[in-house]
Amino acid sequence: MAEQKIPQVTAKRLPLYYRYLEKLHAIGKQRVSSSDLSDALQIDPATIRRDFSYLGELGKKGYGYNVTYLLQFLRDFLKQDEVTNVVLIGVGNLGTALLRYNFYRSHNTKLVAGFDQDPRKVGTDIDGIPVYSMDRLKEVIALHHVEVAILTVPVNVAQATADFLFEAGIRGILNFTPARLTAPPTVRIHNIDLTIELQTLIYFLKNFPDDENVEVSDEKE
Amino acid sequence: MAEQKIPQVTAKRLPLYYRYLEKLHAIGKQRVSSSDLSDALQIDPATIRRDFSYLGELGKKGYGYNVTYLLQFLRDFLKQDEVTNVVLIGVGNLGTALLRYNFYRSHNTKLVAGFDQDPRKVGTDIDGIPVYSMDRLKEVIALHHVEVAILTVPVNVAQATADFLFEAGIRGILNFTPARLTAPPTVRIHNIDLTIELQTLIYFLKNFPDDENVEVSDEKE
Repeated sequence: MAEQKIPQVTAKRLPLYYRYLEKLHAIGKQRVSSSDLSDALQIDPATIRRDFSYLGELGKKGYGYNVTYLLQFLRDFLKQDEVTNVVLIGVGNLGTALLRYNFYRSHNTKLVAGFDQDPRKVGTDIDGIPVYSMDRLKEVIALHHVEVAILTVPVNVAQATADFLFEAGIRGILNFTPARLTAPPTVRIHNIDLTIELQTLIYFLKNFPDDENVEVSDEKE
Repeated sequence: MAEQKIPQVTAKRLPLYYRYLEKLHAIGKQRVSSSDLSDALQIDPATIRRDFSYLGELGKKGYGYNVTYLLQFLRDFLKQDEVTNVVLIGVGNLGTALLRYNFYRSHNTKLVAGFDQDPRKVGTDIDGIPVYSMDRLKEVIALHHVEVAILTVPVNVAQATADFLFEAGIRGILNFTPARLTAPPTVRIHNIDLTIELQTLIYFLKNFPDDENVEVSDEKE
């Protein structure tokens, strides 16, 4: 399979397609058109066709897509069969909620441990996921072959914690802190700043109140 | 001020610029260059200049930007002086964490109420924010002039809850459920699917392990 680089906005939609195709497959449906997918997922049909075009020749005009084939293709592409172990750093309110959230519907990611420096939390577990002290990080991530961490520490210790993670071998961080982290070039940081997500929604509501609902607004870029 | 439509990726960075400029202003700094901003925020200088170009003529080549002017400009642009009241629907683990999260550093958004159908939660408060039963939604949002809701209900009731919100007059939803909501065209939905965020990070790590760290990857589009 050619590993062509696809845009991040497309990459984000592939798991959506995958989940919906799983449902269609489960009820025995054999074909699906881009307009069926569009109705179910609230994504423009042209966007769907463009997304699929990055993946190669997947459908025939007027026929639609073969559900089983597309599902297998996406499974390989998304490497859904490989489980990725993930740790979470900072077991506060948001961290605890994310440990419980458990990234459901995702068969290919597993939260294996939480870390916190509060001795009252160390040794407990959140819905079966153990909480360790930070000084055991290297040992635990070596044991579980972890390269990805979710960061939910207070903002004032975010950079120091991230530096410690890089040092321990973490290569990807899902950063929920508002800090803009400095990282080695080989590390990938993905920021989710909840305040900014809320402000952006409000910004568009206030400034473009009569705009049509555009769900995947990055398309506008 | 011209209300030119700007890309969502730019809109998401404006609050970052604003926060950093507030800090510079507080320590008495009068000018800032795009490369200073770049270092502090880990955003490419060309991206910063392009973002600011959407806002009009804000700086002089070789001089940089006037901190006070830029701060005032962004404050007006982001309508930082107006407070937007927000409600949260579904006071489970994630909902509770978000009520406590309190969207700090944001002077212009205020979580005024949570809603849940569990009678054990109704009448309590989370860090001072009261939890109401769903049947009081219309009354509470009318009282506080609320048009924006954060949705953290279970996925199986997401669409029915959203329909109830539209009916009550909510015009913007920050949707944390994995449901792809069907909404009237005048309503804006902003999806944050945490599973997909994590999967996208892992996808890029697995497929492009040696890629340079690109923090704002939507730029690639």
